[in-house]
Amino acid sequence: MGIKVHGGVFSTATMRVFACLNEKEIHFEFTAVDMRTGEHKKEHFLLRNPFGKLPAFEDGDLKLFESRAITKYIASTHSHKGTQLVIEDPKKKAIMSVWMEVEAHQFDPPASKLTWELALKPQFGMVTDEAVVKVHEVELAKVLDIYEARLSESKYLGGDCFTLVDLHHLPTMHYLMGTKIKALFGSRPHVSAWCAECLARPAWLKVVAMQKKE
Amino acid sequence: MGIKVHGGVFSTATMRVFACLNEKEIHFEFTAVDMRTGEHKKEHFLLRNPFGKLPAFEDGDLKLFESRAITKYIASTHSHKGTQLVIEDPKKKAIMSVWMEVEAHQFDPPASKLTWELALKPQFGMVTDEAVVKVHEVELAKVLDIYEARLSESKYLGGDCFTLVDLHHLPTMHYLMGTKIKALFGSRPHVSAWCAECLARPAWLKVVAMQKKE
Repeated sequence: MGIKVHGGVFSTATMRVFACLNEKEIHFEFTAVDMRTGEHKKEHFLLRNPFGKLPAFEDGDLKLFESRAITKYIASTHSHKGTQLVIEDPKKKAIMSVWMEVEAHQFDPPASKLTWELALKPQFGMVTDEAVVKVHEVELAKVLDIYEARLSESKYLGGDCFTLVDLHHLPTMHYLMGTKIKALFGSRPHVSAWCAECLARPAWLKVVAMQKKE
Repeated sequence: MGIKVHGGVFSTATMRVFACLNEKEIHFEFTAVDMRTGEHKKEHFLLRNPFGKLPAFEDGDLKLFESRAITKYIASTHSHKGTQLVIEDPKKKAIMSVWMEVEAHQFDPPASKLTWELALKPQFGMVTDEAVVKVHEVELAKVLDIYEARLSESKYLGGDCFTLVDLHHLPTMHYLMGTKIKALFGSRPHVSAWCAECLARPAWLKVVAMQKKE
């Protein structure tokens, strides 16, 4: 019983779930799924996530996958524990929901591509595709221009406080800080301050520390 | 005051919002945004949606964008009107949320690419890129295999009843039915039955009827 996460400490989606559990101060059991041996495509893992992607999550008899569905479940079922990660007021919640979708549909596609090309491929000894980088760098810059405007009016992306919206950005933001894409964040003052503050959260530093143990 | 949708009757994201409002039997005012003249990139529209994408939504003084954030807002603030589109039980809601993310991250990327290449480009007199079609056809087939397994155990994708999960699929599903991709749905019995049932819903037929008036 209890909460279990099956994933990888370097997987962005797994890191998103870890960050949420840490913010909520929830104890969990972690089982590493070895992608190098293709464990995520084997039957026992496909029963947890038919798409063969990390992570998979268990809370007693409840089995979930898709990192953003997991974080929403954790934040809503443990609303009074740790950091309050969702906004209750219906109108403010709707605005938070808009920016949650923005992360998923506008920010994440270019940010994930850039993370793969510039941060992860080199780790695996693979060659970065500079043409792909170029396209997605332009895309991400446009998104960050809109974030700069938003963050000049709102302390956090989803509203006045740190929420799942900001948290969902952490894994790719973390990886991109170690690449030339850091300059895209750094050249926009509000984005830069927001980014630094989110990445310095103790709950996030614990996620990064898990990578260092590997 | 009241509910207003600024969008296009052929835009998949706008159609998603229409479908939700119709299921909820909510009266709304529609303002067409002419993408051919680039109205969606002009300042007055960018104030409604900084990403310059359709639709934008108003409920009194509340302004929203991102179609899935809009449908979630409508479904939760009008929970007792029309069709009940969200599940309240926390565990069942979490499962619904998983499949909501699956639609957004697994189904929609290939489905939207195929809709653009095979249904919309020809309407605009543009040439379909067959290489793009080939890649995304393979992607979509894999997703539909998983849907077939899911729908053999669950009447609808999100659970026992029609929810936002199914509704979010309607616009691309509708367009793909008019293309060769129809065969991917038709060759999987549970997917095929689910698809036919969802597309026959009166609330959806009203969305399609709006296109015929154009």
